[in-house]
Amino acid sequence: MTADRNIYLHDIPMDEAWAHFTAALEATGLWRPLPAEEVPLQRALGRVTAGPIWARISAPHYHASAMDGYAVRARDTLGATETAPVILQEGDPASAERPAQPVNTGQPLPDWADAVIMIEHVQPLGGGRLEIRASVAPWAHVRPMGEDMVATELVLPANHVLRPVDLGAIAGCGHTSVRVRRRPLVAILPTGSELVRPGDALKPGSVIEYNSIVLGAQVESWGGRVLRLEPVSDDFARIRTAVADAASNRATLILINAGSSAGSEDHTAAVIRSLGEVLVHGIAVRPGHPVVMGLVHSGDQTVPALGVPGYPVSAALTGEIFVRPLLDRWLGRATEPPLTIQGELTRKVLSPTGDDEYMRVTAGRVGDRVLVTPLGRGAGVISSLVRADGIVRIPRFSEGHDAGDTVTVHLYRSPYEIEHTVLIIGSHDLTLDLLAQFLAERRPEFRLASAHVGSLGGLMALRRGQAHLAGCHLLDVATGEYNVTYVRQYMPGMAVRLITLAGREQGLILPRGNPRRIAGIADLARPDLRYANRQRGAGTRLLFDHLLEQAGLKPEQVNGYENEQITHLAVAAAVKSGQADAGMGVLAAARALELDFIPLGTERYDLALPLQHAAEPGVTAVLDLLHDPEFRAAVAALPGYDVSAMGTVAAEIS
Amino acid sequence: MTADRNIYLHDIPMDEAWAHFTAALEATGLWRPLPAEEVPLQRALGRVTAGPIWARISAPHYHASAMDGYAVRARDTLGATETAPVILQEGDPASAERPAQPVNTGQPLPDWADAVIMIEHVQPLGGGRLEIRASVAPWAHVRPMGEDMVATELVLPANHVLRPVDLGAIAGCGHTSVRVRRRPLVAILPTGSELVRPGDALKPGSVIEYNSIVLGAQVESWGGRVLRLEPVSDDFARIRTAVADAASNRATLILINAGSSAGSEDHTAAVIRSLGEVLVHGIAVRPGHPVVMGLVHSGDQTVPALGVPGYPVSAALTGEIFVRPLLDRWLGRATEPPLTIQGELTRKVLSPTGDDEYMRVTAGRVGDRVLVTPLGRGAGVISSLVRADGIVRIPRFSEGHDAGDTVTVHLYRSPYEIEHTVLIIGSHDLTLDLLAQFLAERRPEFRLASAHVGSLGGLMALRRGQAHLAGCHLLDVATGEYNVTYVRQYMPGMAVRLITLAGREQGLILPRGNPRRIAGIADLARPDLRYANRQRGAGTRLLFDHLLEQAGLKPEQVNGYENEQITHLAVAAAVKSGQADAGMGVLAAARALELDFIPLGTERYDLALPLQHAAEPGVTAVLDLLHDPEFRAAVAALPGYDVSAMGTVAAEIS
Repeated sequence: MTADRNIYLHDIPMDEAWAHFTAALEATGLWRPLPAEEVPLQRALGRVTAGPIWARISAPHYHASAMDGYAVRARDTLGATETAPVILQEGDPASAERPAQPVNTGQPLPDWADAVIMIEHVQPLGGGRLEIRASVAPWAHVRPMGEDMVATELVLPANHVLRPVDLGAIAGCGHTSVRVRRRPLVAILPTGSELVRPGDALKPGSVIEYNSIVLGAQVESWGGRVLRLEPVSDDFARIRTAVADAASNRATLILINAGSSAGSEDHTAAVIRSLGEVLVHGIAVRPGHPVVMGLVHSGDQTVPALGVPGYPVSAALTGEIFVRPLLDRWLGRATEPPLTIQGELTRKVLSPTGDDEYMRVTAGRVGDRVLVTPLGRGAGVISSLVRADGIVRIPRFSEGHDAGDTVTVHLYRSPYEIEHTVLIIGSHDLTLDLLAQFLAERRPEFRLASAHVGSLGGLMALRRGQAHLAGCHLLDVATGEYNVTYVRQYMPGMAVRLITLAGREQGLILPRGNPRRIAGIADLARPDLRYANRQRGAGTRLLFDHLLEQAGLKPEQVNGYENEQITHLAVAAAVKSGQADAGMGVLAAARALELDFIPLGTERYDLALPLQHAAEPGVTAVLDLLHDPEFRAAVAALPGYDVSAMGTVAAEIS
Repeated sequence: MTADRNIYLHDIPMDEAWAHFTAALEATGLWRPLPAEEVPLQRALGRVTAGPIWARISAPHYHASAMDGYAVRARDTLGATETAPVILQEGDPASAERPAQPVNTGQPLPDWADAVIMIEHVQPLGGGRLEIRASVAPWAHVRPMGEDMVATELVLPANHVLRPVDLGAIAGCGHTSVRVRRRPLVAILPTGSELVRPGDALKPGSVIEYNSIVLGAQVESWGGRVLRLEPVSDDFARIRTAVADAASNRATLILINAGSSAGSEDHTAAVIRSLGEVLVHGIAVRPGHPVVMGLVHSGDQTVPALGVPGYPVSAALTGEIFVRPLLDRWLGRATEPPLTIQGELTRKVLSPTGDDEYMRVTAGRVGDRVLVTPLGRGAGVISSLVRADGIVRIPRFSEGHDAGDTVTVHLYRSPYEIEHTVLIIGSHDLTLDLLAQFLAERRPEFRLASAHVGSLGGLMALRRGQAHLAGCHLLDVATGEYNVTYVRQYMPGMAVRLITLAGREQGLILPRGNPRRIAGIADLARPDLRYANRQRGAGTRLLFDHLLEQAGLKPEQVNGYENEQITHLAVAAAVKSGQADAGMGVLAAARALELDFIPLGTERYDLALPLQHAAEPGVTAVLDLLHDPEFRAAVAALPGYDVSAMGTVAAEIS
């Protein structure tokens, strides 16, 4: 198995890879917009015009009354005033000296008329006699022929994405259909012996195949059509057949996911080479560097093929970075850069020189600053892309950024959403997920974004002005009181309100059936046990340290004290997976993963609110939920939670 | 016909109308999100989550290798250094003292392993012996179970619009489908005896029915489904039947277009009243005030119904103002306000107090200012919505704005497009349409927006810094030279380059066959003739004045001298329609509408470019086109155009 391992990819810079690839497309005539097709206007929304649209007829195509009223000859109205009214007669010039003919809005003027008097300005006297007390100018209240569009004029240029009103204008100037760019057909081939379909049974090592769902949805949202191919195992011949079929099947582009790296089961590059040529293998971009770019031949057709990395974040970013500009080019559309926002980085980030890095971040406004916080950089963590508010690009000649640097965020959400985000930081609690959920239902204009840095980390972030609220459960061993001492110490001089979210039970989380027969804290000194701890600054860790001390134990005696997990659920998952034999956390986390639990006591979980944020609408929307009966009931239904003090002010600190 | 005319609508303020309508919906249980439906993830893009999505399984659901390499026990690697390598043996604990098992990225760790050594850090020695020169920490290069998502955690809240990566995350945590809000079904009923379908033969008074295309596309782009109803004539009984059918057909909303005003053929309010109740008839909003809001009953169902005004701009804005928030509410989604930009109004606008006005504007950046120019306010001019870059809202207590005021534009285009717009102002020429078209094809990242204010108006706008380029053809009668004198006079002290666009033939545009036997300028003094003139500041008007003077005529002698048209094509359309017997313009305009033409001479049409804009990328992209052989050929193909001097510098003025 190791013999055929090709260890290294020779990554080349992103710009160079793209230039090389597009030059090859240019040389084969593939770097240009696709041919046009004619579609009815009812189905043309969002399509891209393939050529200019010239008015075929004028609109209106006749002189139309712009009002409900009477068509008249302007000269017949001359001299009419309040004191010297003029009398008109319903009829036409054959029947009346000063004729007036009723017209509704949109109706054509009679040949002989050149103006309209509004109905409000006409006094019927009976017998068809109409009194007017003001004259009208020629063409008053008339929409002359061509007022909107004149035959032969340009209504819309080529390369325009059609909006609803455009379709109206195209219909209005005499067309029933419109020539638009054909939509590129993108074949997506999932490869990998480890892949299973969503919903299939899982065994260790099996991977739910969802990259094709993400890539397919990206292609559709960028104007392409998708040819979904059946997943194939890591077998050179089968992959080759599937790719060759797609190429002969009029695909505009083939995406092979994954097998694009250089492992023993990575066949993508070899398949492309066998059917055409590999232009690039390996790009210096993070995440996502093992990208393959090539061309596949089928008969007289040449089809570009991309080997897309398998990690979901890499796959999605490969879509954004390389697939989208291809589709834009084929649709003849400018690649519009995403909206950007400037913000202040909340912590230092290092980035390898040599690589272009796409760093996922959250962004939110606190007071008058926009704060940008890097998310985890693991390429396997699709939830980081879900949570991301945008991307900060760190170019390959940069080593990264310091905390406080101003950076540009390429937004995934609208600036409106960024501006309407309430940032909550600190200790993780399941209740925060419920809070986010209830906020989305009750007040969809706001969004709760939470970052989990532990209770102390939260208070320090509040002091630095990096969040609106912090969740904390910090026991002062000396006083037995929660949070107040720590707010005084870590947020000196700031006016802070502590609002109780819930009381919650903490204890030891153990494998089901407690196979290692753990009775309490004291057992954790046993050398055969592995403990899963929380990170420094976490309230649960402080509580654990306190309980250790009470039991007369030192951290060094606990095997796994350095194994830091970031949430209660992560601790439970570590126990569930066998990575650890015990951890400390809330009862709800143990119950969620069907684990055993030894209670060690109830603690108070508060939200710390700097008073300077107390009047912000998003903050009040969040705090209002603490008095929402349905929210309280949902929290009370979590095992080990006590809502009797929810929403009460535990302390005002200034 | 006049007897049943109901002249006045009692318009009520917009906020009041909306509050009244939504209160009635609230009272009937219709002001809340629609029920949910389950859809497969492959078809869920853009749908709105109907409830929270909790992780069903953890991701990864096992401890996975994060690298290609060897699974090991971390403790077996302790002590390995450059100078004191450690030897591992391929195998498991049963076969080896220090076992190492090859793993590829994503594969599960064996039970006994707790770390991975990257393949690059292993030196095979043969016989399955592997040398390492560094130790690894526990859990190094491992993606522990739940690293991405932990079972039971919140993945996405309710009321979230699903993006491609969201679909991946939902699949990754164990779902195959997702509960989303049902899409509202909007029935659209076109009414009017004057309506014809796009493509049908037109006679005076017939109106191409395209509001249903616009409203339908709006509804689709906002997440609704459309039930397109057959158009019906202005017949109370037929409209009533169609509305009742739609109500019993499970429509969520019925749009009746039009007949919403108070004319003799306006049945919408009466139909709604006969099937339920009218809540609002007439809203103080411009354009679009004759809106009807009501409820229609069918069995035990109540369905909201809107009477939408017939003018296309009013109809489209009624969609934006009233239909969109209804759909957002039913989808449980926040109505996200459009992006805005601040800009400087280029001219004074008056707005009636009492009405909320939605004023269409263009916006573009010139130097460091964003300039906002009102477009025509006619509600029948759909092309004004096509050309609009956004809307300026003038609230009902305001009388309008002065030129130079800073206003907020609610954008229809992205800020990127606004920033990439080249503004050309001045005299209209068909060539500018071609220039816009070629720019869109050659350089889709830029957009050309032209405003037609006549040659002098263009130079004055350049002086005020309101455009990048101005098109002008201003004859100095004294010198016989074009444009230079006027640039000196109207742009004193500015450095300006005059670049020739084309030579073009001007002359008299006459009805086909010249029925009034017009031989030249002198005939325009005949009292039986009506002339169509151009607006003040137009080069064609100056040329006409010059020719009048040469012919010994005064403006007062020309019947129709005050009839001002804004483009060559508008002049031709006036002649074509019989509104005028003669007008002056270019040969191309006469040819386009198949009219007669008496040539009066060739003039030079230049682009004036203030040198301060000469280096702007959009401006150079436009000027590059003057040397593009295909563009030159397209202009040369227009009748009466001479491109021999195209792109040459006619003068440098400073």
